[in-house]
Amino acid sequence: MSELFDERLADWKEQIDAELKNILDSLEYADEFKEILEYALFPGGKRLRPILLLEWHSVFSPPDEYALRYACGIEILHSYSLIHDDMPCMDNDDLRRGKPTVHKKYGEGKALLAGDALMDLAYRILNMPTPRGDASPFNLYPALCGDMGLINGQFIDLYGKINSLDDLVKMYRLKTGALIKLACVSGFMLGNNLNYQSGDKFVGSLFGNYVKSVITDRAAPEDERMIKYVMASGFGEAFGCAFQLYDDITEYIAGEKLSETSALKFIDLEEAKIALNNHLNDAAKTLEIVGGDTEYLSEFLQKFVIV
Amino acid sequence: MSELFDERLADWKEQIDAELKNILDSLEYADEFKEILEYALFPGGKRLRPILLLEWHSVFSPPDEYALRYACGIEILHSYSLIHDDMPCMDNDDLRRGKPTVHKKYGEGKALLAGDALMDLAYRILNMPTPRGDASPFNLYPALCGDMGLINGQFIDLYGKINSLDDLVKMYRLKTGALIKLACVSGFMLGNNLNYQSGDKFVGSLFGNYVKSVITDRAAPEDERMIKYVMASGFGEAFGCAFQLYDDITEYIAGEKLSETSALKFIDLEEAKIALNNHLNDAAKTLEIVGGDTEYLSEFLQKFVIV
Repeated sequence: MSELFDERLADWKEQIDAELKNILDSLEYADEFKEILEYALFPGGKRLRPILLLEWHSVFSPPDEYALRYACGIEILHSYSLIHDDMPCMDNDDLRRGKPTVHKKYGEGKALLAGDALMDLAYRILNMPTPRGDASPFNLYPALCGDMGLINGQFIDLYGKINSLDDLVKMYRLKTGALIKLACVSGFMLGNNLNYQSGDKFVGSLFGNYVKSVITDRAAPEDERMIKYVMASGFGEAFGCAFQLYDDITEYIAGEKLSETSALKFIDLEEAKIALNNHLNDAAKTLEIVGGDTEYLSEFLQKFVIV
Repeated sequence: MSELFDERLADWKEQIDAELKNILDSLEYADEFKEILEYALFPGGKRLRPILLLEWHSVFSPPDEYALRYACGIEILHSYSLIHDDMPCMDNDDLRRGKPTVHKKYGEGKALLAGDALMDLAYRILNMPTPRGDASPFNLYPALCGDMGLINGQFIDLYGKINSLDDLVKMYRLKTGALIKLACVSGFMLGNNLNYQSGDKFVGSLFGNYVKSVITDRAAPEDERMIKYVMASGFGEAFGCAFQLYDDITEYIAGEKLSETSALKFIDLEEAKIALNNHLNDAAKTLEIVGGDTEYLSEFLQKFVIV
């Protein structure tokens, strides 16, 4: 089964890469600029976020071009954030996945513009119409990538005070967790042909509001679907924390210099392993409640177990 | 009449500023980060882009909250691009509208993040539902701010070759013109309750495609409306060129050091004035074809006449 799943992951990655290439080809940027965008997007990492979207989508629906396109939009958003975060004025990293970061290779000006272009491109893709004719989960994105997610998380990481594990988890929920959660929720929404329509997108707890708006939208609330929605969100939340701990633990075991924001600065290895496995178990529990064909998502979680 | 129009401009500006403040207040960023965003957005310049949207909207429809919100989205997009363009790795400017640029005041890391946050925020606002229940002109934005506009223009400005007035105009059409054109077209679309629906948003000439898609969308094409749409676009195109020339000429007359991309590097003052007035005349001609209550737009153009 595990080998089959590896093949499946490789197949997703191939599909994602092909679609990303299509998207780049369709742009009207100068060849030199497209080369920079391609450098940023390829070969890419494990493509975790788009794969999570596709796996959540697959639980409810056969694969389709909309889910694939949306998955690529998420990967592109992730990629923009990496380019900007790597820059000297932020994390100042020279290497990313074993090759020079975009600004190291092409200079800071082009890196800054490349990040801008990818954010813009991501929102173009994520806003494209789905079979329902409207931009499905798009409205969730800017808020959860902005003040309720990615950008706010990076701000706290760089300029906030992180004095405890609680502070750290709060930061990672924003910086890493929001996009992972979005991937899972988007897969769920696209797989169920759901849409988000509400004028009230500025205020309050976004997921809280979302749930309210889904309920309000329906004359007869479909409770079962609602529960599954909350489970997709909970899975993303739990896996986001697990993923960060997994990263910190493998870094620690490899003897690398710990970053200032490693969980291992606050807890020891055994505690970190216990926390990791607790989060993975929390994620697994959401799948039990969802039921149906969630085996692949279970296998996905298995990849992050450290004994 | 001109005094009345000045009052009208001041009133628009007041409304825009109040709405921008509302938008900032609604965000969940830390107070320090909100302060940076406020610093970037206030006191602002002449608010030309949002006012153009509101004036075009007013030709067809009484003022409403959607147009005002959309106008603020455009101003926020403009503001993100200024922050990033001013940074040392790009234009390296220390001053903007007489006060320190965002990175000079708060550091480069925070400036980079503030730009990201404003782009994200702009797309959140521009994608909000209108009375028609869908995101009206939003789909035009990312393409015309990305490879077919703003970002591509800045790339050409910094890294392209500008050897002639033609090259220069091409660059300015992208860097400055696209957003101005969008403001006019958005005002037209919101004022006429039009929407943009087409799967084909990647390729080809966007405005060409757009026109086709509007035609396709309608069983009986409304030719008159189509012509007005093209006029709004043409007005934006012509005024975008005029605005750039106006800037270059006033800079020249004030005896400031000419930038590398001043039109006065390629033509002399008299030629520049003729070109400016030709563009303003082109814009005025579109208004004749539109007809109706376009007096304020005519007055707007008058503000940029140099004799």
